[in-house]
Amino acid sequence: MIEKEVWNEYWELMPEEEMKKIQWLKLKRILIFAYTSSAFYHKKFNEAGIHPDDIKSFADFSRKVPVTTKAELRSMQAEGYPLGSNMTVSRTEIVWITASTGTTGKPTYTCCTKKDWEMWMECAKRMFWLGGLRPEDTHIHALGLSNWISGISFATAAREIGATVVPVGVPTPVDRMLMLIRDLKPTSIVCTPSYAEHLANKCQELLDLKPSELGLRKFFCGGEPGASIPSFRRKMENIWQCDMRDLMGSPEMICGDLIECHLKNGFHIVNREFCYNEFCDPITKMPIEMKDGAEGTRIYTALDKEAGPLIRFDVQDQCQIMVAPCECGYPGIRFNVTGRYDDMLKIKGVKIWPSTIKDIISSFAPKLTGQFKIILQEKPELFTVTGPVKLKVEHADGLTDNDVKNIKKELVNSIRRSCLWAPENVIMSPPGSIPPAEFKAKYIEIDAN
Amino acid sequence: MIEKEVWNEYWELMPEEEMKKIQWLKLKRILIFAYTSSAFYHKKFNEAGIHPDDIKSFADFSRKVPVTTKAELRSMQAEGYPLGSNMTVSRTEIVWITASTGTTGKPTYTCCTKKDWEMWMECAKRMFWLGGLRPEDTHIHALGLSNWISGISFATAAREIGATVVPVGVPTPVDRMLMLIRDLKPTSIVCTPSYAEHLANKCQELLDLKPSELGLRKFFCGGEPGASIPSFRRKMENIWQCDMRDLMGSPEMICGDLIECHLKNGFHIVNREFCYNEFCDPITKMPIEMKDGAEGTRIYTALDKEAGPLIRFDVQDQCQIMVAPCECGYPGIRFNVTGRYDDMLKIKGVKIWPSTIKDIISSFAPKLTGQFKIILQEKPELFTVTGPVKLKVEHADGLTDNDVKNIKKELVNSIRRSCLWAPENVIMSPPGSIPPAEFKAKYIEIDAN
Repeated sequence: MIEKEVWNEYWELMPEEEMKKIQWLKLKRILIFAYTSSAFYHKKFNEAGIHPDDIKSFADFSRKVPVTTKAELRSMQAEGYPLGSNMTVSRTEIVWITASTGTTGKPTYTCCTKKDWEMWMECAKRMFWLGGLRPEDTHIHALGLSNWISGISFATAAREIGATVVPVGVPTPVDRMLMLIRDLKPTSIVCTPSYAEHLANKCQELLDLKPSELGLRKFFCGGEPGASIPSFRRKMENIWQCDMRDLMGSPEMICGDLIECHLKNGFHIVNREFCYNEFCDPITKMPIEMKDGAEGTRIYTALDKEAGPLIRFDVQDQCQIMVAPCECGYPGIRFNVTGRYDDMLKIKGVKIWPSTIKDIISSFAPKLTGQFKIILQEKPELFTVTGPVKLKVEHADGLTDNDVKNIKKELVNSIRRSCLWAPENVIMSPPGSIPPAEFKAKYIEIDAN
Repeated sequence: MIEKEVWNEYWELMPEEEMKKIQWLKLKRILIFAYTSSAFYHKKFNEAGIHPDDIKSFADFSRKVPVTTKAELRSMQAEGYPLGSNMTVSRTEIVWITASTGTTGKPTYTCCTKKDWEMWMECAKRMFWLGGLRPEDTHIHALGLSNWISGISFATAAREIGATVVPVGVPTPVDRMLMLIRDLKPTSIVCTPSYAEHLANKCQELLDLKPSELGLRKFFCGGEPGASIPSFRRKMENIWQCDMRDLMGSPEMICGDLIECHLKNGFHIVNREFCYNEFCDPITKMPIEMKDGAEGTRIYTALDKEAGPLIRFDVQDQCQIMVAPCECGYPGIRFNVTGRYDDMLKIKGVKIWPSTIKDIISSFAPKLTGQFKIILQEKPELFTVTGPVKLKVEHADGLTDNDVKNIKKELVNSIRRSCLWAPENVIMSPPGSIPPAEFKAKYIEIDAN
């Protein structure tokens, strides 16, 4: 590496072997903390018949300690806000509470102490730095600012790196966002991939400028799949003349901690000493064999979290592992997220991920706009879809009826080839009929009719 | 004072005489900085025929240095974003840019360097602490988070004090806001006064709870007049069983710096060593005689600002001075803001402030809801209103036609007594017909018909 390529050279560049020793010590410490300070974990460990002293190796840990699920977080929090029986610090030690954005039902809360906040900032700074953000950038924050973890924290971390932060947030009227971009000439932006696309479309429409003329060269995209889907990324990088990096966070642990390096070949984990990751079978929760291409769910343990520790939290992301060292020199394994086990659909026994469908549709650009909905008759139970599946797909402007008919046929064939399944009914929908998502795009719609 | 009543005892409690010496030294320094680093001020001073060395006393400063107006900020910024000819630092030294919320025309930008940010935080922490926020509070942020100065900065300052911050922001659906309040049991909130009223109304409607049952005991209100209007404050403190404090910021200087102590008798200035305040005649801009009850516009000079210094910035707030020492022991003068000179209306030669009308209407509670609009035929020029003035006032539920007629008569009389003027036409409007403002309430509407 030529210049300072990472934020914190000592910890980030530590060889995996040495890092494992740190992780092991911290793992023992957090198990003791959870068992002795969290009513939830004290009970959970007792019920599983385990004691921190029983855990003598990483293998012991994976074999003996049960996973923690999102459903458990929700029901434990219902026992008493904000952390229910996983309340491990006094209320006055908590300095920040964020709530998930879920609009239905109860939000889940994530709390942090002063030390948790510092850890969070450290992770976010490493993430942005590895992603290429530098003090000389003017950086526009175009994710939501309310509540959720990628809001104020991301804007603060970018400021602490020394970049010039413009904390706009969404929702903000898109004409105002574009005016600010035109005026302030930011070089960098963090937003969802669908917002990157929305901005590009509106730029042409409202400013009569090519997106590339705005000078935004660094796109940090997260919050939904997209930035690492090759066809989508190619399209955006071409339109904006930019470098697009996918990033992800671990909301329940409270940080943004995964980002692509300039080689864009999987997520690097920037916070190895704060987070122990296992990649496991989605059903048995036992570690899979670590080899290139292996697939499993990510299960993580927050090694330093004070307010509400999480032990073996099952993220339900479908990950594909790369163990071969990255040519960029950053240590540790990498992985791609290819779907979510809890978003996964089992249709007639076949596993289908909406992100795969998105990828296929994107490859039809510019004939298809990229907007689509998978319409089910009822909410899937244990991933399993009953009843016929409709796919509503938006086509571009200026096509003849015949063009549309042909694209539809090609699309169905393409889905069938990739997924070994195709929707019963594909509805080709005119441009503008499926509203572009400014937030986390939801690809599945339930419609009983 | 018994406990630590202020955040920074040394600077905040410094006797006025000693503080004046600090201010004088810093004033000399900032004059040199502005003259030697800002093209805008270099030119402005030259045109006024002054040189920093000419300023040998506070009196010289007031007499010789011209004021800076908001219009100047706007036009200088148009010369080149973000700070135009008042750009005093290199772009890479700027770490934060906020834009005013103005929806029409160009926003004005405020920038800060790392040091400016630290000053901003120091001011906001002093403000919240003097207002009674403590580490044991859970504090909900219910002002906007996007861009404007009272957003992320206020949430960050509350966190740095050690309070448990819930950064929700507005706009957020009010049912979600109430759910978070019910779940997390905050003891403190920062919001606009109109939002405090809106929340109270919705609390009864959506949760079937009295507002006081929610346990919010500290209301920090700013962003619009209201919290220090006696009748409004009495009503809110009674409904919520709370302690309501008015606060204000100096956006162009970048900080929140004015707040009431527990005696609630005018704003204390918490940042005397960062900001030199003059109270001047609104037309001549020369200092008024400092005695209790004197009225004038506030003109301030940011003594430490690195990115875009402001010398004699005319705030256009109509202030009423209190020079008698406050019984709380906090040093320095206090003042009330009784209107804005740029909001002021001259109707048939009489000066009328919408806030005075608001105050009168509030005194009719519960018969009037407090919602109202002043409707003009055209935008005033130099404060002067041409054509008849309509007043639209919302009355409460359950009144007979006769009640409404009588209230209208009383209201007109009351306005005439206080203002020596009354609107040509008062329209009594049914409850719910004037939407409650979730943001900065706008009291004036232009309607040519």
